[in-house]
Amino acid sequence: MAPTDAIHPVATGRAAETVAQHQDPQDLTFYSGWFSPFSQRVWIALEEKGIPYQYKEVDPYKREEHFLRINPKGLVPAVEYRGKAIYESLVLLEFLEDAYPSYKPNLLPSDPYERARQRIWIDHISKTIIPASMRLTMTQPNEQEKLKTARNEFYEALRKLQDEIKGPYFAGEQFTLVDVVIAPWVSRDYVSAEHRGFKREDVGDGWAKYAKAIETRDSVLRTTSERDKVQVMYDKYLRGEAQSEAAKAIRAGRPIP
Amino acid sequence: MAPTDAIHPVATGRAAETVAQHQDPQDLTFYSGWFSPFSQRVWIALEEKGIPYQYKEVDPYKREEHFLRINPKGLVPAVEYRGKAIYESLVLLEFLEDAYPSYKPNLLPSDPYERARQRIWIDHISKTIIPASMRLTMTQPNEQEKLKTARNEFYEALRKLQDEIKGPYFAGEQFTLVDVVIAPWVSRDYVSAEHRGFKREDVGDGWAKYAKAIETRDSVLRTTSERDKVQVMYDKYLRGEAQSEAAKAIRAGRPIP
Repeated sequence: MAPTDAIHPVATGRAAETVAQHQDPQDLTFYSGWFSPFSQRVWIALEEKGIPYQYKEVDPYKREEHFLRINPKGLVPAVEYRGKAIYESLVLLEFLEDAYPSYKPNLLPSDPYERARQRIWIDHISKTIIPASMRLTMTQPNEQEKLKTARNEFYEALRKLQDEIKGPYFAGEQFTLVDVVIAPWVSRDYVSAEHRGFKREDVGDGWAKYAKAIETRDSVLRTTSERDKVQVMYDKYLRGEAQSEAAKAIRAGRPIP
Repeated sequence: MAPTDAIHPVATGRAAETVAQHQDPQDLTFYSGWFSPFSQRVWIALEEKGIPYQYKEVDPYKREEHFLRINPKGLVPAVEYRGKAIYESLVLLEFLEDAYPSYKPNLLPSDPYERARQRIWIDHISKTIIPASMRLTMTQPNEQEKLKTARNEFYEALRKLQDEIKGPYFAGEQFTLVDVVIAPWVSRDYVSAEHRGFKREDVGDGWAKYAKAIETRDSVLRTTSERDKVQVMYDKYLRGEAQSEAAKAIRAGRPIP
């Protein structure tokens, strides 16, 4: 592995400051990979709500024994809450709402229909937007027709969500779970912009405005590492060599675990 | 299409009796396909909780205009609740818990950790068990090695869930959301038993006992149509010719929509 390929072991920039502030033991231990967008979702929610947590960095490629007892899948994010283990980013986001009802803001509305609407669009992000985003990143630029198809699939998926955005956030003035769930992909779309011809404006003006609102949200900034360190993580995806479970799933045509 | 291939248009047997009892307009209209396992999940929950609902049969292959206004994806199950549309079976199950808190039993426990545990295993059913079940059904019996692999993948996926079952149901004496979510696949496993060499006992004794408890649950029986009518639906899967969105997704290596 060339030196430039080396994975930076810990968070940097604003994210490093946030890590430094969350070193003391708490009821909730947050097992995270600083570069994992799935971890960042949970991190954003913890920061939004001001829940006390201890941050622990995990290298998911190492499959450390203590961590496998927390999550047998060996994937981040995971949480140890009063000795009990929970994993899967969407499960964790619902858990934080359930377990910390007095920590505001509530990221899920209280109205049952509005909650359902949040979950419908989270499902769209999981099943359509994220796989399309990964396929675009993993499509090689010399395969021009494939690249165009991948880009259009990604645009179509984003436009469906765009049509539902009240502005500035998905549900209006309130920052809610849909915003949390898509945020890490929005704030890193420079990777496909620089390497795969992606343009926010080509999705639509509504999308460009929404993306700006998301990436400048304080909780997103506070959980974001330096761009060059993040970029290294994506180089392997861009070369089609990524070995993450998600990348393997996309190549095998299986659901992202 | 040969006459034996004709899709029966409506529910039969015990399910037909249940449909007949739910013809009057209510706050909640349940759009269902009698043969859809995803619809049956929601139907089981409605029956378990005794929520008043009007049953409307939808042929998802016809893409009727009124129904597309309810669910633009054209998929069952969907619900119209006081003029508002909701879809996706898992979203609907959470919605019923949120919107009808006084209708017992609660299918989600109240403890935040236990709720997370339910959602972790529902996620396993969605991402691992159901795709493995579909791949097994769609693997042709002359492809012996592939069939063996598909069967073993299905067994492995089921064993992971089996290890978590307290008995008789997933969470113990209470019938909960995990049971609802897996039930339609358990009660129809005779398809892969008859045609793909599947045996409950080969998963494990725990699984065989659990499957028996699930398939004899009253809400499951009350939403189950006659076996020969159900079987016709699976003949196309068994021949590898199914054209449902789920079948197309499995063939294309995409997430089930």
